Amino acid sequence: MIPEGASYFLSWRMAVEANNVREWRTVPSQCLSYAEAYMLGGQYDRDLDMIVDQILSYINEIVPSDDGMDAWILDVDDTCISNLFYYRGKRYGCDPFDPAGFKAWALKGGCPAIPAVLGLFKYLVRNGFKVFLITGRDQETLGQATTDNLHNQGFIGYERLIFKTAGFKGQSAAAYKSEIRRRLEKEGYRIWGNVGDQWSDLQGECLGSRAFKLPNPMYFVP
Amino acid sequence: MIPEGASYFLSWRMAVEANNVREWRTVPSQCLSYAEAYMLGGQYDRDLDMIVDQILSYINEIVPSDDGMDAWILDVDDTCISNLFYYRGKRYGCDPFDPAGFKAWALKGGCPAIPAVLGLFKYLVRNGFKVFLITGRDQETLGQATTDNLHNQGFIGYERLIFKTAGFKGQSAAAYKSEIRRRLEKEGYRIWGNVGDQWSDLQGECLGSRAFKLPNPMYFVP
Repeated sequence: MIPEGASYFLSWRMAVEANNVREWRTVPSQCLSYAEAYMLGGQYDRDLDMIVDQILSYINEIVPSDDGMDAWILDVDDTCISNLFYYRGKRYGCDPFDPAGFKAWALKGGCPAIPAVLGLFKYLVRNGFKVFLITGRDQETLGQATTDNLHNQGFIGYERLIFKTAGFKGQSAAAYKSEIRRRLEKEGYRIWGNVGDQWSDLQGECLGSRAFKLPNPMYFVP
Repeated sequence: MIPEGASYFLSWRMAVEANNVREWRTVPSQCLSYAEAYMLGGQYDRDLDMIVDQILSYINEIVPSDDGMDAWILDVDDTCISNLFYYRGKRYGCDPFDPAGFKAWALKGGCPAIPAVLGLFKYLVRNGFKVFLITGRDQETLGQATTDNLHNQGFIGYERLIFKTAGFKGQSAAAYKSEIRRRLEKEGYRIWGNVGDQWSDLQGECLGSRAFKLPNPMYFVP
């Protein structure tokens, strides 16, 4: 028998990951201890490992071309690098989003790599895919810190790191990222896969051949 | 600490529900006892309840028109009515799909209603939505048994029950259901919502305003 609070958090997590709950601002406060146990107790890492295994199986079915136009897209926050230590101070998302606090955190450049995704990244680069990192972080304020953070965590060899620039201000992540993908396709890239922790990374236009949703029960980006 | 098998099943379930695992034929056999516990122990029902709560919140934001063209789409198998008792005999999906066995089961017309979805169905009908039930079941062989089964389980008052006819033979569920939705939109219906236990119910064309994925860790329909 699963305790009631744990059961509620399981339902919450399932509903979030299947994109049934949208535009949510905070994690229900009764989930706090279960969210912490999920993120720190090993299940989050095991969920990531299984998805990366699925991605690797899929990659091994791809027959890449030798024109250098086989592309993959990875999101940055909570895909390549983790904000878990920041969100620990925000009660794993039970507290509302704090833009100034998050900016201060991101400026420190201390986000650790998510090991399973770092492994995937290196595998993609080694196998000749052009990897594009697309982030909703603002170029002007967070560009240098983010570039350095990714580098010091081992994300080396990507094709391009694409930030949100002033022209996209006010656009949703889904609209902004769709437009970036559209431009890449126009350059001739074949987007084989797209990996993100938010549905807004994976929906919209020019979606590529496959999308992979990584778990994130802590926050929602529209 | 979550036992290893339970942890693996949680990762499996998450990967399936977020559409990260595709074209799978059987549930990994090490998941058997955990799949049973999930389906029979209450968590499956609680997951359904939470999603139906989300659907009801969404419905209450809709301002329906008085032209009678506000539509909802529900899938049938493991959305309106349950095949759990059949799949219990197939080790909750650890055994491969058995077309003859499933046909014999469906012909009995003994699938119980899924209570949360029956409640949703009645709410939709009561509130003036036109409800279309779209199923991949074959009209010729299973039409009468399915119609009777839905009726005896309380699914009364829908606008149309749409079966797969000979002309769609060999088409994927996603292609067939997309074409049916396209025809409904052509008739002038506004599809406000679409509810199914398979991603193939919810992907393709003419998707409607919102899709809701119900849990189903037992089988995959392409």
